[in-house]
Amino acid sequence: MNAMRELSVELGERSYPIFIGEGLLEQAGELFEKQGIGKKSPVLIVTDEHVAVRHLDKLVDVLQRSGYQTESAVVPPGETSKSLAVFEDLMTKALQAGLDRKSTIVALGGGVVGDLAGFVAASYMRGIKFVQVPTTILAHDSSVGGKVAVNHPQAKNIIGAFHQPELVLYDLNTLQTLPAREVSAGLSEVVKHGLIWDSEFVQWCDDHGDRLLALDPEALGYALYKGCTVKAAVVSRDERENDLRMILNLGHTIGHALEAVAGYNELLHGEAISIGMVGSARLAVELGAPQEVLTVTKRVLSRVGLPVRLPEHLDTDRIMEAMMHDKKFLEGTMIFIVPTAIGQVEINKSVSTELVRKIVEQLKQEAVQA
Amino acid sequence: MNAMRELSVELGERSYPIFIGEGLLEQAGELFEKQGIGKKSPVLIVTDEHVAVRHLDKLVDVLQRSGYQTESAVVPPGETSKSLAVFEDLMTKALQAGLDRKSTIVALGGGVVGDLAGFVAASYMRGIKFVQVPTTILAHDSSVGGKVAVNHPQAKNIIGAFHQPELVLYDLNTLQTLPAREVSAGLSEVVKHGLIWDSEFVQWCDDHGDRLLALDPEALGYALYKGCTVKAAVVSRDERENDLRMILNLGHTIGHALEAVAGYNELLHGEAISIGMVGSARLAVELGAPQEVLTVTKRVLSRVGLPVRLPEHLDTDRIMEAMMHDKKFLEGTMIFIVPTAIGQVEINKSVSTELVRKIVEQLKQEAVQA
Ligand SMILES: NC(=O)c1ccc[n+]([C@@H]2O[C@H](COP(=O)([O-])OP(=O)(O)OC[C@H]3O[C@@H](n4cnc5c(N)ncnc54)[C@H](O)[C@@H]3O)[C@@H](O)[C@H]2O)c1
Ligand SMILES: NC(=O)c1ccc[n+]([C@@H]2O[C@H](COP(=O)([O-])OP(=O)(O)OC[C@H]3O[C@@H](n4cnc5c(N)ncnc54)[C@H](O)[C@@H]3O)[C@@H](O)[C@H]2O)c1
Ligand SMILES: [Zn+2]
Ligand SMILES: [Zn+2]
Repeated sequence: MNAMRELSVELGERSYPIFIGEGLLEQAGELFEKQGIGKKSPVLIVTDEHVAVRHLDKLVDVLQRSGYQTESAVVPPGETSKSLAVFEDLMTKALQAGLDRKSTIVALGGGVVGDLAGFVAASYMRGIKFVQVPTTILAHDSSVGGKVAVNHPQAKNIIGAFHQPELVLYDLNTLQTLPAREVSAGLSEVVKHGLIWDSEFVQWCDDHGDRLLALDPEALGYALYKGCTVKAAVVSRDERENDLRMILNLGHTIGHALEAVAGYNELLHGEAISIGMVGSARLAVELGAPQEVLTVTKRVLSRVGLPVRLPEHLDTDRIMEAMMHDKKFLEGTMIFIVPTAIGQVEINKSVSTELVRKIVEQLKQEAVQA
Repeated sequence: MNAMRELSVELGERSYPIFIGEGLLEQAGELFEKQGIGKKSPVLIVTDEHVAVRHLDKLVDVLQRSGYQTESAVVPPGETSKSLAVFEDLMTKALQAGLDRKSTIVALGGGVVGDLAGFVAASYMRGIKFVQVPTTILAHDSSVGGKVAVNHPQAKNIIGAFHQPELVLYDLNTLQTLPAREVSAGLSEVVKHGLIWDSEFVQWCDDHGDRLLALDPEALGYALYKGCTVKAAVVSRDERENDLRMILNLGHTIGHALEAVAGYNELLHGEAISIGMVGSARLAVELGAPQEVLTVTKRVLSRVGLPVRLPEHLDTDRIMEAMMHDKKFLEGTMIFIVPTAIGQVEINKSVSTELVRKIVEQLKQEAVQA
């Protein structure tokens, strides 16, 4: 077993630790206790059906052996569970389980479960404690930063709160059961964290793509540690998304539009973002960045099994419309996060929509072998 | 016209002013502007049907003349609008109105509208600006302190947040249309603020009961100013209800139980609290406080048209059960806010349930003329 890695998200009074390692579920009782999760009030574990069959019993067992009273709520897997209807069901469950103001809600799962359970914790009795136990690679992103939300039928993540967890407990063993496509999709945000902040780490990803895809615990632990470190650094400097935090949206302007146009089944979020990041790199080169920004971006994303070309059947007009529907649009120009070099980005508030259209067209021709 | 009164709720970065006066709706544009409510993003006014017919046009007109883009949402009157269903409708409305992160939600109405619209403002895009324009006397209480919430079918106010407004704008003229029963019910919390904090103000209420019931603007302005001052002082010292804020619950342990047992139509919240405060005063005397605590409490509440006797048909066993269901119960003893003198209370964490039962019985015999 590898050593446990630990880092801290620095937010003053609301600071909290992230623990990453193999077999950490077994230590959940001690780690919860160390972070001040009380045993007198019931704890509600929220998870989804896929995760429940694989990892719920272990967590329940460990916590109960440590003296915690636990109740579990299992929601259907997938984005549709991030709804006010499921939110209300969980409130009912929390009431029935007798949760009080000293209780804690634990999210065991990917970003869907984390966002949903987090918003329940933010709102139940106007806010109770919350613990993230992420089980997807993507959730290294969603579990850090305190953004929690459910969807409205007309807009994603529009109903939510900022609610920081007491701790994040990342057991690498739980990731071993992830479907391959989810592995790659999650690595998309890992690579993103390198691209916006840390060129050495991008190089490392380039060198270790195979080991990451093979879920090698040492490589995975390091990559998640680095990804969380970047996310934590950005969030610490801008908790409520006023400014700097925008750089986390690298690839997301195009990415969100692709998700909307393709329908949420054809492209996973991480896949759409991957294509979006290639778009941002192309844009960067058009705006004067070195060619390398594009070639390295494409190469690293390909290494971890991600698409870099935009499916040709997706209509450019509809993609453009979806982007302008997004709030990042202002009178003929758009706001984009644009790389200036590998590991560095800037916020460009006046990218012309014409140039963006050209990039979208080019993305459909993108050579797959970089 | 009387002078405008102003006070400030001191909460560091989240501090905000309360303006109280006649005809303040006419000044809404300037006051909004002064508090930094932007004009570029749309403003959503939330109100209920009773208030809409009386006061909405004026507010819309004034704000639009000042250059604000406004949209209005009118919900059915009454506690049933504090539901997740109406919350979701308002989210839809906010999306349709194009509210963005710089938008503001304005609550024009009583505590129901304030709590509901406040939770929408707390959650829309993870929190946008919020203004309280209270139109009931009770709302001097609900509009100060930042507690916002909706109800769950099984529990009141269980789904919510702490979300402070940018300002509170109290136009005494809007109160002139209040039904008499709502006037008295609202004064119950005004008197409560005197009883927990300020004996001189209790004396003043005793002397000015008639003028308050007649909605005399000078008397009303002073009473609301004093009531808000006490609430603001308590909240400033304990924003998130860790300790001191509990004293605001004077009369509420018994009061909530009466509301639950009587059904929410027989007793208004303020009426139930009135009887509850008489109960607390009786308890105080039993525990050694001077007899005056009981006589003055009863007299002042009677002066403003409030009940001091518990309706005999309400079953004592059911009242006791409802109280124990409340979280303030711990192994044979209960937590009560107990007056030690007029204008002073203490938190007593070990009141025996037997003594409480005796008080409930006595409340049914309470002499109505003190
Ligand atoms: N809050 C934030 O800051 C933030 C950031 C990024 C993304 N998000 C949100 O995260 C969500 C996406 O997260 P996600 O990709 O983790 O999705 P997810 O939670 O739906 O998980 C993806 C799939 O993997 C399954 N799964 C999870 N863990 C597993 C395991 N260990 N073994 C086998 N199967 C497993 C799930 O059941 C699901 O089918 C989106 O809703 C997005 O909005 C939030
Ligand atoms: N957030 C808090 O700290 C806090 C504190 C106390 C109470 N509350 C909440 O406040 C609510 C009760 O508030 P309320 O008593 O103001 O109830 P309310 O908002 O329902 O108003 C009472 C009635 O008066 C009507 N009305 C309001 N203004 C009027 C006007 N100017 N003219 C004519 N009719 C008018 C309303 O339509 C309603 O029928 C409860 O839901 C309670 O939980 C919250
Ligand atoms: Zn993302
Ligand atoms: Zn009250």
